[in-house]
Amino acid sequence: MKKLKIVKIGGNIIDDPGELNNFLKEFSKLEGLKILVHGGGKSATTLANKMGVEVKMIEGRRITDIETLDIVTMTYAGKINKTIVAQLQANGCNALGFTGADGNTILAEKRPVKNIDYGLAGDVVQVNTAVLQLLLPNAITPVFCALTHDGNGQLLNTNADTIAAELAIAFAKDYYVELYYCFEKNGLLKDVKDPDSVVLNVDTQMYNSLLAEGIIADGMLPKLNNCFYALKHQVSKVCIGKAEMLYNSNSKFTTIQE
Amino acid sequence: MKKLKIVKIGGNIIDDPGELNNFLKEFSKLEGLKILVHGGGKSATTLANKMGVEVKMIEGRRITDIETLDIVTMTYAGKINKTIVAQLQANGCNALGFTGADGNTILAEKRPVKNIDYGLAGDVVQVNTAVLQLLLPNAITPVFCALTHDGNGQLLNTNADTIAAELAIAFAKDYYVELYYCFEKNGLLKDVKDPDSVVLNVDTQMYNSLLAEGIIADGMLPKLNNCFYALKHQVSKVCIGKAEMLYNSNSKFTTIQE
Repeated sequence: MKKLKIVKIGGNIIDDPGELNNFLKEFSKLEGLKILVHGGGKSATTLANKMGVEVKMIEGRRITDIETLDIVTMTYAGKINKTIVAQLQANGCNALGFTGADGNTILAEKRPVKNIDYGLAGDVVQVNTAVLQLLLPNAITPVFCALTHDGNGQLLNTNADTIAAELAIAFAKDYYVELYYCFEKNGLLKDVKDPDSVVLNVDTQMYNSLLAEGIIADGMLPKLNNCFYALKHQVSKVCIGKAEMLYNSNSKFTTIQE
Repeated sequence: MKKLKIVKIGGNIIDDPGELNNFLKEFSKLEGLKILVHGGGKSATTLANKMGVEVKMIEGRRITDIETLDIVTMTYAGKINKTIVAQLQANGCNALGFTGADGNTILAEKRPVKNIDYGLAGDVVQVNTAVLQLLLPNAITPVFCALTHDGNGQLLNTNADTIAAELAIAFAKDYYVELYYCFEKNGLLKDVKDPDSVVLNVDTQMYNSLLAEGIIADGMLPKLNNCFYALKHQVSKVCIGKAEMLYNSNSKFTTIQE
C-alpha cells in the first residue's frame, strides 16, 4: 500500500518566520508522498486589528462574519499559503496551494446554529481526492489552508486540525496514512509541568483511563478527539508532538494507534 | 491540435460583483480546455487605504515594496482568486487557483532597476506547463492571479496581461491557443468616442499603419504590444474586446492575427 504523510502545523511555527523557514527546509526533505495543512496563527487577528475589524471569539473559536471571512481568506489562502508555497519551491519541493474550493477538494456546510452562531464556519461534508491523487504521484505536494466551500459559491472557515483529519480519512481507503499534528509540546504529557513526561504510546484503552484520571484536559481534548476520530476511520497512525518528530530520530512524541 | 482558450479579465469585471458573477456563469459554459487569468482591480488599493499603507504608482504601474507585496498577495491570491474559484465551482466548473509559485508554473526575476525601481515586480523568465497539462485533460480549469516567484522564495507582483501572454506562448508549442483580453471597450476603436467604430481585424501591416496614424495610443499601446508579442511566438489568435466576445455571437470585437 502506498504511504502518505499528512502534516499539520499551527501558530507556533507559522507565527515565527525563523521556525517556519527551518520547518519548511526539513519538510521538503521528507521522502515519499506528503500533504501539508496549515492553520492561520495570529495573522487574521493582526490584520483585523489593522483594519479596525472586531475579533469575536467564543470558547477559542473565531466567529466568522462576512468581514472576518474576507480577512481569513486574505491571510490564510493569500499571505500564509503563498509564502509557504514559494518557500517550499525554494527548497526543491514542488508545492501547490489549496483551499477546499480548489479542485472541489473539500465540500462543507455552514455549521448549524445551536447555542452559538459561528457564522461562516464550515463542517466538512465530503473530501474529493481525485485531483490530489493526480498530483501526488507526479511529485507535487499539496498545501492546504483552513478554508472549505459549500459548493454554492460560499467559502467557509474550517478548523485546520479537522481538515488534516478529514484528508487523512479520505486517503485511508487507498493509502497507508500517517497523520502528524505538530504543536508546541512534546506530545501528551503525564505532568503538564514536565515537558519530558511524554506518553510515548496511546491506544484506545489507555486513552479512556487517561481521560478518567483527568490527564487529558483543556486544549488537548479536541486534539485527541481528532486523533481517535481519524484512527476509527482507518487512518493507520497519528502522531502528536513538536515538528522535529518528523525529522529528528531522537525526539520524543506521542504515537496514537488503536 | 488541441485547442486552448486563455482568457484574461481585469478591473471592469472584478470590481463589480454582478459583472463578475455573470461573467463566471458564462465562462463556466465555455467548452473545451480553458485557463482564466485575473488582474487585481482596485482591491489592493482599497486594502492599502484601510491599512494606512501608502500606494505608490508611477506611469500607471504599482511600486511594490514589502508591505505592498503582502497586500497584493492577500487580495490577488486570497480574496479575489478564491472568490472566483468558489463561484466557478458553484457553476460546475472545476477550478483550481494558481500563483506562479504553485506547481512552479511561472518563474520570474525581480525587474532590474533602471530609471525606476518597481520593487518586488517580476519579469517572467520561464513558464512550466507540466502541472497544467496534467490538470487540463482532467477537466480542471486553472485560475491564475497576477503573482509569480523567483525560485528563491520571493513572490513577485506581475502584470496580469503579461501572465496571460506568457502562458499562451508556453502552450503554443502543443496547443492551438486563442488568447482573449477582456476589457471595458469593444476592442480597438478607429474613433475613441465611437464605441461602434471597432476595427474587426488587425494584422501586422495594419498595426503599423494604425500606429503611424496615431490611432493606437495611450492605454492601448501596451495591450496591443502584448498581443503582437504573443502572435510572434506562435499563439494562433488574439482577441480584445468586452467579455461578451466569448459567448455572444453578435458582439463586435477585434481579432488580431499575423
